[in-house]
Amino acid sequence: MELAARTGTTVELSAGDELVVTNTHGRQVVDTWALSAEKPTRFLSAPHTWMHHGRLTIRVGDSLMDNTRRPLLSMIEDSSPGDHDMLIPSCDLARYRQLGVEGYHDNCHDNFFEALAAAGVEAPQFVPQPLNLFMRVPITPDGAFSIDSPLARPADHVRLAALEDVVVVLSACPQDLAPTNGVGRTPTGVAYEVIGRRA
Amino acid sequence: MELAARTGTTVELSAGDELVVTNTHGRQVVDTWALSAEKPTRFLSAPHTWMHHGRLTIRVGDSLMDNTRRPLLSMIEDSSPGDHDMLIPSCDLARYRQLGVEGYHDNCHDNFFEALAAAGVEAPQFVPQPLNLFMRVPITPDGAFSIDSPLARPADHVRLAALEDVVVVLSACPQDLAPTNGVGRTPTGVAYEVIGRRA
Repeated sequence: MELAARTGTTVELSAGDELVVTNTHGRQVVDTWALSAEKPTRFLSAPHTWMHHGRLTIRVGDSLMDNTRRPLLSMIEDSSPGDHDMLIPSCDLARYRQLGVEGYHDNCHDNFFEALAAAGVEAPQFVPQPLNLFMRVPITPDGAFSIDSPLARPADHVRLAALEDVVVVLSACPQDLAPTNGVGRTPTGVAYEVIGRRA
Repeated sequence: MELAARTGTTVELSAGDELVVTNTHGRQVVDTWALSAEKPTRFLSAPHTWMHHGRLTIRVGDSLMDNTRRPLLSMIEDSSPGDHDMLIPSCDLARYRQLGVEGYHDNCHDNFFEALAAAGVEAPQFVPQPLNLFMRVPITPDGAFSIDSPLARPADHVRLAALEDVVVVLSACPQDLAPTNGVGRTPTGVAYEVIGRRA
């Protein structure tokens, strides 16, 4: 399936399903959330994932933990150079205002709520911290960081396995005023595929 | 006011009030949240604070941002060596189960909800990522981290200024199975004072 540039979607996974997210054109960040299908106030949580692994990075083989310390997903394959951020909040209209935008601007925050509403899935009260697939955020020893152009190449992909029934939300980040999606500042679409779906 | 070891409380601040949190005995971590008094789904947000400052540390003079990118609090004074973590989630019963506890164990997660309930303040659906005052979490260049014994000394304090009306929740962290509150693993109480309260 194609996910058009600047848009979001939900992907419902049953336990055991795998989701492949492919960076069709390269350098495109994909804000990614996962909510328990049973109880959407259980969601993929960056701090609980960091705490589980004792580091701020995720690698192939890592579980992605929810806010009750249960594993929701596992990253089982990654053909990209391995940058996946969990520190930077999803872009929102307030961020684009800071960058000088006066009218509306597509943003991952709204994509999250709109994708859930379109799927009829109950949304949490606010946007959890996303897993930003392919996003490159180098951290210096003193704790400073920058948002750099991603190293992910065309056709690089990540494969996530669902450890229980989950609703994943994907947003092809529409950031075109910073190098989040490459120095060309041209957001693109990505592709995704569900493997093993029972239905 | 004294905050007893292992317990939590709310502190209501009007815009302009200052809150001083004193590490009476030293080495005690204080999980700290701030919710907008007007709308408790606006809360102090670690990722939005990091993004605002471009670093994972906070210093005197820094604003503490909410999840809509508005400043809720400002850190205006800090007599401690300056370690304040925003990466580690609050301890909860699931964490103590991992550490071998079979019965109940006091925890910051429950302290958060119990303190808000006792004050009659509407709680969000889940516990936001806290600001862990005095918590020492060194990060290595490869992104690994550890939870070390705090360097905060007896009587070290932090002063926070409220930039709007907020409800602060404080929890004297009851962690006694890890060096979070010092190698002695003996949680203690702390003290807090509100300055400039209009009432």
